[in-house]
Amino acid sequence: MDYPSKIVEEAVRQFSKLPGIGKKTAMRLVLSLLKHEDNDVQQFADSLVRLKKDLKYCIRCNNISDEDICGICADERRVKEIICVVEDLRDVMAIENTNHYKGLYHVLGGLISPVDGIGPSDIAIEPFLIRLKEENISEIIFALAATMEGDTTTFYISKRMKDMEIKITTIARGISVGGELEYADEITLGRSISGRIEYKV
Amino acid sequence: MDYPSKIVEEAVRQFSKLPGIGKKTAMRLVLSLLKHEDNDVQQFADSLVRLKKDLKYCIRCNNISDEDICGICADERRVKEIICVVEDLRDVMAIENTNHYKGLYHVLGGLISPVDGIGPSDIAIEPFLIRLKEENISEIIFALAATMEGDTTTFYISKRMKDMEIKITTIARGISVGGELEYADEITLGRSISGRIEYKV
Repeated sequence: MDYPSKIVEEAVRQFSKLPGIGKKTAMRLVLSLLKHEDNDVQQFADSLVRLKKDLKYCIRCNNISDEDICGICADERRVKEIICVVEDLRDVMAIENTNHYKGLYHVLGGLISPVDGIGPSDIAIEPFLIRLKEENISEIIFALAATMEGDTTTFYISKRMKDMEIKITTIARGISVGGELEYADEITLGRSISGRIEYKV
Repeated sequence: MDYPSKIVEEAVRQFSKLPGIGKKTAMRLVLSLLKHEDNDVQQFADSLVRLKKDLKYCIRCNNISDEDICGICADERRVKEIICVVEDLRDVMAIENTNHYKGLYHVLGGLISPVDGIGPSDIAIEPFLIRLKEENISEIIFALAATMEGDTTTFYISKRMKDMEIKITTIARGISVGGELEYADEITLGRSISGRIEYKV
């Protein structure tokens, strides 16, 4: 494609660096921005710059925050003895939305993935292990993706924790609520059988 | 969803104003930007601001350009008597890529769409009619989308041109090259029959 304008070409190139955005989608986004008001585009640009300039990471749980300590860590009503280990902000928000968890979090900021060149030192594992020594923690819940990367990360961290007297759990994998058995994939169904729980009346 | 950071929330809101981008996709884009270098994000932001500040529209054909006159209009080798009317930049690029057209363009910047509140005065129709009087044009090719909006726009402009001695054509609609008849929709197939062309050996 031959762009009639270097400015458009540059904006398209910038958009297509984002995940899941190809050249055609990028062009559509750029054209739609051209129809916005000058002021709107300036605000958009400012919000991006602020992401890198003003955003902080909670010094305790590594979650994204506007303050040094995030709202969850600062909340006195949270149970301080349980930490749920998640990949990123989205997982925190998803779990918060369930209203089923009142403990704290630790945000790794990624998963171990040798294919992508992401090793244990590239994500917030060391700060987590230090945190475990400093705080009085009774249980760690791993809530990472049920993928090779998620499983590897859970395995690596729990290995590193083996001399600590802390209970380690993972969230249950199984048939989704309302899900029919015949449509579940074999691996999920297999895990839900091997991880079966006692039925109490 | 309850965002842990106003800065993230604002960036997500900005991204989700773009077409086809919902809250979840916006969040994914914001999180990916957080992993970019400060400098990269600044460049992204700058490229957006430049879109509104430095970008020009060709004073002849209304195409996006870095100069007052776009590269196509300024090109002496183009056929100056034929104008192809298109919706936007993407159509110009698509037609240029075919290498089948050597005339000029006129970019409307939209299509008449009463549903969306876009009337004839909201797109570059008047400048086009003025241009037709000033330049020595022999043929206008309408290359607008085969939709209600495209057809309405073609109809409206050709009505306004009816006292001008200019040949009006539209690009052919029909079965795509390599396409099987049985998979074509009825309207396309119908149009390709009514718009059949003489077969020359």
